[in-house]
Amino acid sequence: MGFSLDLEVIKEVIPDYQIEGSTEKVSITGISSISKAEEGDLSFLANPKYRSDVKDSVASFILLPIDYSDSSPKVNQLFIKTENPSRSLAKICRLIYGELFLKPPAGINPLASVHENTAIEKGVSVGPFSCVGEGARIGKNTYIESHCHIGDNVFIGEDCHLYPNVKLLSNCQIGNGVHLNSGVVIGSEGYGFEQVGTSHEKIPHLGKVIIEDDVEIGANTCVDRARLEETRIGEGTKIDNLVQIGHNVRIGKGCLIVAQVGIAGSVVFEDGVVVGGQAGFAGHLKIGKGAKIAGQAGITKNVEAGAFLKGNPALPVQLAHKISVLQRKLPDLFKRIAQDSVAN
Amino acid sequence: MGFSLDLEVIKEVIPDYQIEGSTEKVSITGISSISKAEEGDLSFLANPKYRSDVKDSVASFILLPIDYSDSSPKVNQLFIKTENPSRSLAKICRLIYGELFLKPPAGINPLASVHENTAIEKGVSVGPFSCVGEGARIGKNTYIESHCHIGDNVFIGEDCHLYPNVKLLSNCQIGNGVHLNSGVVIGSEGYGFEQVGTSHEKIPHLGKVIIEDDVEIGANTCVDRARLEETRIGEGTKIDNLVQIGHNVRIGKGCLIVAQVGIAGSVVFEDGVVVGGQAGFAGHLKIGKGAKIAGQAGITKNVEAGAFLKGNPALPVQLAHKISVLQRKLPDLFKRIAQDSVAN
Amino acid sequence: MGFSLDLEVIKEVIPDYQIEGSTEKVSITGISSISKAEEGDLSFLANPKYRSDVKDSVASFILLPIDYSDSSPKVNQLFIKTENPSRSLAKICRLIYGELFLKPPAGINPLASVHENTAIEKGVSVGPFSCVGEGARIGKNTYIESHCHIGDNVFIGEDCHLYPNVKLLSNCQIGNGVHLNSGVVIGSEGYGFEQVGTSHEKIPHLGKVIIEDDVEIGANTCVDRARLEETRIGEGTKIDNLVQIGHNVRIGKGCLIVAQVGIAGSVVFEDGVVVGGQAGFAGHLKIGKGAKIAGQAGITKNVEAGAFLKGNPALPVQLAHKISVLQRKLPDLFKRIAQDSVAN
Repeated sequence: MGFSLDLEVIKEVIPDYQIEGSTEKVSITGISSISKAEEGDLSFLANPKYRSDVKDSVASFILLPIDYSDSSPKVNQLFIKTENPSRSLAKICRLIYGELFLKPPAGINPLASVHENTAIEKGVSVGPFSCVGEGARIGKNTYIESHCHIGDNVFIGEDCHLYPNVKLLSNCQIGNGVHLNSGVVIGSEGYGFEQVGTSHEKIPHLGKVIIEDDVEIGANTCVDRARLEETRIGEGTKIDNLVQIGHNVRIGKGCLIVAQVGIAGSVVFEDGVVVGGQAGFAGHLKIGKGAKIAGQAGITKNVEAGAFLKGNPALPVQLAHKISVLQRKLPDLFKRIAQDSVAN
Repeated sequence: MGFSLDLEVIKEVIPDYQIEGSTEKVSITGISSISKAEEGDLSFLANPKYRSDVKDSVASFILLPIDYSDSSPKVNQLFIKTENPSRSLAKICRLIYGELFLKPPAGINPLASVHENTAIEKGVSVGPFSCVGEGARIGKNTYIESHCHIGDNVFIGEDCHLYPNVKLLSNCQIGNGVHLNSGVVIGSEGYGFEQVGTSHEKIPHLGKVIIEDDVEIGANTCVDRARLEETRIGEGTKIDNLVQIGHNVRIGKGCLIVAQVGIAGSVVFEDGVVVGGQAGFAGHLKIGKGAKIAGQAGITKNVEAGAFLKGNPALPVQLAHKISVLQRKLPDLFKRIAQDSVAN
Repeated sequence: MGFSLDLEVIKEVIPDYQIEGSTEKVSITGISSISKAEEGDLSFLANPKYRSDVKDSVASFILLPIDYSDSSPKVNQLFIKTENPSRSLAKICRLIYGELFLKPPAGINPLASVHENTAIEKGVSVGPFSCVGEGARIGKNTYIESHCHIGDNVFIGEDCHLYPNVKLLSNCQIGNGVHLNSGVVIGSEGYGFEQVGTSHEKIPHLGKVIIEDDVEIGANTCVDRARLEETRIGEGTKIDNLVQIGHNVRIGKGCLIVAQVGIAGSVVFEDGVVVGGQAGFAGHLKIGKGAKIAGQAGITKNVEAGAFLKGNPALPVQLAHKISVLQRKLPDLFKRIAQDSVAN
């Protein structure tokens, strides 16, 4: 994998750890699942179904839940016990990430194009073939990779990461700690036309897109600008790849939206809505707090808070399952009814 | 919002206006819905359900239908009455758009790469990090933003707008007044393979894509080149984001195709077809004039002119609705039949 | 079309040909279907349903099956008979492709940015505004067009073709003969979050993507990097446009995946799986060898080798069709049962 992480550093990020066993190794040089781990690797028990694999693992370091007692460490093997191995793993991965994916030193790459009238704070890195338009502001330590377009008057917060080829069109606003994957388009023209006779005249879109703090948006996802005011993605919401967010949509805080979902214009999501892949939402709907929408569902009516819907037309998930079961019995039912008719 | 539009200019674009009220203001400095408008804003009544909000609005200028008489303008407020407030609004928005999204002066950005053997007309603007290949022709006043790729022998008409990162691959042809959003790919390889034993040999695609006048294509949409001849998008057709148009497809004039629709190879749309989001079309189908296809529908057979289909398998919309209602009654039906069996 | 292919060259690529008729022409200057062909064109009979059109075609050259005897060539027309006209056509198209879409001479375009610490073999072409990161290796004759991003430590094999705007993020590996269309993203962040209270903490993705030999990937398709190990696309697999491949997915050899399919994390495809457009797969499933999945199907359970499934929930295709037919009879059924109740 090409990294080496000092064991001491790891202990620092897991304040509550308990060590079992001993080793002469002082650094972690790989990370892998329990069954695939090799010497030098860190491994972990996050899913209880792999519990019995721990005793056979040759990983040099294993993150385990605090109550694990099924086996003891081998020679030169360390058990690192902690309340939440899964979260500890994520923290360690973050350290390794920094080693594997080196951020270039701060500064404007000589092959970038940055307008003279911009406000770029300390620690910002702008990659080759990226351009930053007039009036743009970029907060400290934000990392902009190659081929990005930062339009006129775009504001970007601190500690953001824009992967190669992110397009932020004019006037859009990005909060702090936002991650935008390659090919993301923020501020594309909304899909709105006025019918005039048999042709369709474009409705110009003057609004913007506002992305709040700690949002992540997946590769090639599009967020259209509002007609007049704003399209908004709420704090902490995580959006996957190839998702379509229409004009004037408002997504609440902490929502999860899986790949290839489509959300038509002016839909409002309250906080904590979870949407499975390829689901679709008709325009102007309100989706209540914490609602869950199954993958491929088609939502054409408002959804109440806490509802869990599935199918198209979407139904409460239990009813949808029941109907699915009964549909499979339709051939039998029709046969029986045909026989009854004959019998009568 | 950062613009200021002289009131006189607005009156020019609405020839049939009638003024009620008076104001000292000479310019519009914002645009907003009736309930959110502030002083200096232009607002409008396009949807009758907001009629009662007009009397409380503090907008400085309100576009109203000619027959509006529910309330009178406040002090320093102007009612601008017109036959079609919605169209008038679109016209005004177009003016504001020009102020908000400044087009750079005509010319080739010094960071663009343009082949010496091209024909570029007056008023064309080519942005930074865009490249234009050998034999390409670009019509007057066309605006090409950053990171665009104009392949060899591509022809682009007049008054087109290519947002950042549009890819027009070799030999494709774009008409006049065409808008292509960020990430659009025109002329990608069609998906065609010849099975040879257990492997699949590529069928090279020699054809092109032709986009007629006044077409708009949304962000990250793909249009594949034809195998031999042409894939064609008809005049005035509007395509949303993340749509897939396969090789040899022919879309008629004035069609509307919403986000994430997928159209397989060699499908033919006649004029005026309307398709909801995420619908899919199997290959080689013919979709008749003015047909309507609901969102997420799956079309696997030819569709007659004027039909309105829904679901997968797709059915006439009324039958589809009826079946949806009856499906929800299946649990009851099966219960009753079970009881009848016992009773008999 | 703008090409001229010497007739002698064509005969070389079809070793088993038989000629009927004669012509003074020495080169092919176009290629077209039988009914649309003009003088100078090569045409072909691949689909028997067009057999009767051959006698009226004015194509100068017609590829025909070896047993064709319905008509004889006209004056100045050549019948070229061969075992497999369809494959012969593909071979000829490949020659024409090379004439129509000229590959630039090998070399690094002066407007590209290539790190000094890379290993670039002979015959490689890197287009304008493309960048190649530290530690990258590119095999001989690979053709990289404009606006591509080759991240640090990316390995690319021989004879690959990267269309404009392909993004290969750090550490990913691409085999030989791989074609990646415009807008492809390889190695985007996987969608994985750890719930901490009401918020979602990012799980860093340290793994890579491995694309084996002879894979083709369509425009704007995304392949996410693995959490720790690898996401892998097997040899000879062909993926269409706008497809989503999640983290840790493993696709076997020779699979066909049509446009807009979505495959969630950790799904495993065995070899030869065929998936229709817009189908979706929930996470962690195993799809057996040679399984076929219809367009728009929703797969939420493991699929056995050789199965052919359709619908959501997905059912064996024959059962799915039967149920579709019976659903259309539900209105009748409910009516009859209502009458029976009255009768009783």
